[in-house]
Amino acid sequence: MEDDVNGPDRPGPGSGSGVPAGARDRLLAAAVAAFAARGFHGTTTRDIAAAARMSPAALYVHHRSKEELLHQISRTGHEQTLAVCRAALEAGDGPVDQLGRLVEAYVGWHAAHHTTARVLNYELGSLSAEHRAEIEALRSQIGALVRDLLQRGVAEGALHTPDAAMTSAAILSLGIDLARWWRDGRGWTPEGVAAHYRALVLAMVRAQA
Amino acid sequence: MEDDVNGPDRPGPGSGSGVPAGARDRLLAAAVAAFAARGFHGTTTRDIAAAARMSPAALYVHHRSKEELLHQISRTGHEQTLAVCRAALEAGDGPVDQLGRLVEAYVGWHAAHHTTARVLNYELGSLSAEHRAEIEALRSQIGALVRDLLQRGVAEGALHTPDAAMTSAAILSLGIDLARWWRDGRGWTPEGVAAHYRALVLAMVRAQA
Repeated sequence: MEDDVNGPDRPGPGSGSGVPAGARDRLLAAAVAAFAARGFHGTTTRDIAAAARMSPAALYVHHRSKEELLHQISRTGHEQTLAVCRAALEAGDGPVDQLGRLVEAYVGWHAAHHTTARVLNYELGSLSAEHRAEIEALRSQIGALVRDLLQRGVAEGALHTPDAAMTSAAILSLGIDLARWWRDGRGWTPEGVAAHYRALVLAMVRAQA
Repeated sequence: MEDDVNGPDRPGPGSGSGVPAGARDRLLAAAVAAFAARGFHGTTTRDIAAAARMSPAALYVHHRSKEELLHQISRTGHEQTLAVCRAALEAGDGPVDQLGRLVEAYVGWHAAHHTTARVLNYELGSLSAEHRAEIEALRSQIGALVRDLLQRGVAEGALHTPDAAMTSAAILSLGIDLARWWRDGRGWTPEGVAAHYRALVLAMVRAQA
């Protein structure tokens, strides 16, 4: 399963900084793999440099610290997630179609980028206070997209839930936790699970098209 | 929020080994807190011993390794989760009532024991191969309880889902991921969220009492 921190057709973070793109991408991919496998606190910059086939000194030229690498991964990943959700909302027509598209896109993103998603969600506590606040603001925007959509759908009579905030938390959990178990495989495709979860969520809020 | 690895009225693992219960409980509580905060690989036995107010040598008297502590936490936690699910199933009358009780108990357990639950779910890869196999067998039993219940409910026409295995994965995710974000608070009670999630899941499978 492809799990590219930058996605196939986006410029990497730090592009234009004069650092060769190949080295940058190797470094970020090595950091994602190491953080996902051993946790931020269990990973050394030396581990990351070795996996990226760079010297620790070369790593420090581009990143002052391990935390700066985590921050870059986290910001890029959360910005991508937010963009995927916004695009789904804009493509949809009315709350039911919009919610269906949003769930399918969000769940599909977490399956396709499961290793990155584990780092995004399980290493928030390893960010500096300043970076944590910046990332929590992105997470709040994602949560607000879902909650506002549910509230609009309820107001229009198209969706039904007694607590939009709690139901938003449940919907987000379906994508986030998928990234935890996805590595197990089970013979399912990201598209198949995304479509199934779309139907589950629409049933959850008794959607009426 | 209380988060006691053993629960208030169960004997601790290793009871009868001659180790004072107070020291045992301190050690397990310190290990859970450390693994949840810094990950297994980011925690040293020295950290755990210090938090439990013991010498590293005293820790090694009872646990040959950090992994053995993790294994004990993991086995106890998974056995408790399985017991909570079984009790809910036995107390219920028919698939709809049983599923409702099971979801409420499972979600409530994850909220009340959120710190332990994070260690149970995010440190599986840190167990030895032998211990991992033992824990995965317990996890399979929990998954099978939910899946078999869904299949029975579908066969009886009381529940509706086109893929019981995928829907089971979604239901388990609601509890597991709750433990990740629960520390944020939000002013919700474990009972309130458990009751809301019960209703969400019953809607998800179009339960008909």
